[in-house]
Amino acid sequence: MSSTAPLLTTAEGRAELLKCYRDGLLEDTLRFWFPRCVDAEHGGFLHCVDRDGTVVDTDKSVWAQGRMSWMLLSLYNGYEARPEWLAWAKGGIDFLERHCYDTDGRMFFHVTRDGRPIRKRRYAYSEAFTAIAHAAYARATGSEESMAKAIWLFEHFTRWNFTPGLMPPKSTDVRPMIGLAPRMIAIVTAQELRDCFGMEPRFQEWIFRCINEIDRLFVKRDLGVVMESVRPDGGIEDHFDGRLLNPGHAIEGAWFILREAAFQNSGWLVRLGCQMLDCMWERGWDAEHGGLFYFRDLHNRPVQEYWHEMKFWWPHNEAIIATMLAYVLTGDVKYARWHQQVHDWAHRHFADPEHGEWFGYLNRDGRPSSTLKGNLWKSCFHHPRMQCCCWGLLERFQNTNLQDPNTR
Amino acid sequence: MSSTAPLLTTAEGRAELLKCYRDGLLEDTLRFWFPRCVDAEHGGFLHCVDRDGTVVDTDKSVWAQGRMSWMLLSLYNGYEARPEWLAWAKGGIDFLERHCYDTDGRMFFHVTRDGRPIRKRRYAYSEAFTAIAHAAYARATGSEESMAKAIWLFEHFTRWNFTPGLMPPKSTDVRPMIGLAPRMIAIVTAQELRDCFGMEPRFQEWIFRCINEIDRLFVKRDLGVVMESVRPDGGIEDHFDGRLLNPGHAIEGAWFILREAAFQNSGWLVRLGCQMLDCMWERGWDAEHGGLFYFRDLHNRPVQEYWHEMKFWWPHNEAIIATMLAYVLTGDVKYARWHQQVHDWAHRHFADPEHGEWFGYLNRDGRPSSTLKGNLWKSCFHHPRMQCCCWGLLERFQNTNLQDPNTR
Repeated sequence: MSSTAPLLTTAEGRAELLKCYRDGLLEDTLRFWFPRCVDAEHGGFLHCVDRDGTVVDTDKSVWAQGRMSWMLLSLYNGYEARPEWLAWAKGGIDFLERHCYDTDGRMFFHVTRDGRPIRKRRYAYSEAFTAIAHAAYARATGSEESMAKAIWLFEHFTRWNFTPGLMPPKSTDVRPMIGLAPRMIAIVTAQELRDCFGMEPRFQEWIFRCINEIDRLFVKRDLGVVMESVRPDGGIEDHFDGRLLNPGHAIEGAWFILREAAFQNSGWLVRLGCQMLDCMWERGWDAEHGGLFYFRDLHNRPVQEYWHEMKFWWPHNEAIIATMLAYVLTGDVKYARWHQQVHDWAHRHFADPEHGEWFGYLNRDGRPSSTLKGNLWKSCFHHPRMQCCCWGLLERFQNTNLQDPNTR
Repeated sequence: MSSTAPLLTTAEGRAELLKCYRDGLLEDTLRFWFPRCVDAEHGGFLHCVDRDGTVVDTDKSVWAQGRMSWMLLSLYNGYEARPEWLAWAKGGIDFLERHCYDTDGRMFFHVTRDGRPIRKRRYAYSEAFTAIAHAAYARATGSEESMAKAIWLFEHFTRWNFTPGLMPPKSTDVRPMIGLAPRMIAIVTAQELRDCFGMEPRFQEWIFRCINEIDRLFVKRDLGVVMESVRPDGGIEDHFDGRLLNPGHAIEGAWFILREAAFQNSGWLVRLGCQMLDCMWERGWDAEHGGLFYFRDLHNRPVQEYWHEMKFWWPHNEAIIATMLAYVLTGDVKYARWHQQVHDWAHRHFADPEHGEWFGYLNRDGRPSSTLKGNLWKSCFHHPRMQCCCWGLLERFQNTNLQDPNTR
């Protein structure tokens, strides 16, 4: 076998990758964050940090509190029941319960260190990320209270996002649009709750409804694209916002669907997820400098958002998972090559060997644009989730020889 | 005199600059936009355009309709009464009056080509830019209706921005903040209305109130900085948003104050404007690549906004005006050197000799990040305003030999 064979295609390569993801998660990413991000005084996590872990803002993202609690609990449930992981996660959940709900039952988005509210947003992603934290906590401890809370938050999230007229609109009703994002988050939240609570019909229903809507309204096979926003009937609005593509986001959606494909053992879902990955890899990969562009335009016209050509950390995390899953599910060596390509580029450019973790924001050419390791958007979530998912996949498939369907 | 003497310091240099700004405005910028941006079908201007003027979005910014009408009328009033400039401006104003007001009297922010509303924002800058368009139209034509409308919009803008509790807040009341922006826009809007309607006390009052608030609350001499947002008592919030500096914006504010200094013949205002320019030039100029950074952090910590190190066109327009005005008012050759520095960098990197006008968005190193010449934020405004202001200043001071106070 040639020395340039992608690591995923050989047993030695897979062992090397497994070690890279596992050690990266346990020795690098978790050590960067914990225990120093745990706020012993007010509870929760201080996650707005510079390159070396110095706190640059004591404010707290509600998303981050839920996501980081979930991450710790996923490791506790799936890898090893370390008591400190449970304790830190409980601190995050307690902070959420004590401080992060408005009087109308909806959650805030941004709070002070001691939990006073700064901002509530129109949408309800805080609720989705708190739901998965409670679900994983219920699984870890058997807490019926957390189980009930997770289901209540999931119901709230789906009701808020999918009941027409409930969420206050950003725009007038002149040009109604629906988004890929709430459908993706509904799928992954239902998948997490199903992992914790079993096959309830409500989880299956939301997963199928949202996958069907993505397939029917957002995936445009004739144009080779997954849209980020469309008219309620799937029509395309030929304006800046309507043409906007977010390749990393669509690729994240692709792996949520490939994960479902593996769960359901469904060839149709494998094909859908791979179609989404194929076309958005094509749209997103920067042939000149490598890495995934943040935004593209449907018709390759200029994008209005200033940071469109920057390279953000999370699309690369999502693409590493998506390409690995696609390879595992299809055996197509193309995906092993893509996996190698994005794995190598991302580790070369985002990693910070001096202080650990990844930088969040690179210029198009791969130079860091900022030393931030955490802010209201970046915390201990996408990167360790990728390391955890890929480690888990490799544990299951380490000794499987996948046959390339192209040579079958 | 050395051949490297800044152009502003010699009569030949000033003649060369005058020609550059005048011809740039009349032969390049206006020809890029007009007449092709005039929407013969629906009225107003189609301003979302690519490098060669191709329309990439037919939606209309309400700001752009008012700003472009004002720009045409400023030239009509100040330079030459060309009938087409008046007609195009009237088309912009008619579009605003027909389509851009909500039933509560407030204006929209973003409308479709045929004037159906897409988005209304919390703040009231649409009203300020429509006010200056009406004021310049009243000056051009004697229209009493436009005069009344301009004054009504100015009163609405100031009431909306400065009456506590009137504007719906973005955040909770846990951390109240006030901004530099509404004070700057109040000053420049009042200055424009005063130019058109004369010295009414209400204009003077708003100009003085806002300059005093900027001096007292936003300019921090001990820190060498003009803050973008502060607590209502001028205190600094040590968080991402509270530390955020926008050098180009503060430099724009500096020249609004220097313009007032010239009008009032006030040494105190010259000192204030120059202090603002001095410290924010220091904060904003990129010593490595040249040009002005978009955002900086008060304590040089990392900035949360992704595009912080990009170079946007408008801060460079504002800095060219501010440095020229500072030189004219003080004779300090430092400002002539800074003017040369930003004039040269900006013309070298933003100009598009092939199709005219300036690109809007460059990477830190000066390479264009986008081919857009217009979008919801960029239209025919900052760049021609700079060309017009600098041309006018040079006409007045072309043959004046300013003595450098450092050598007096």
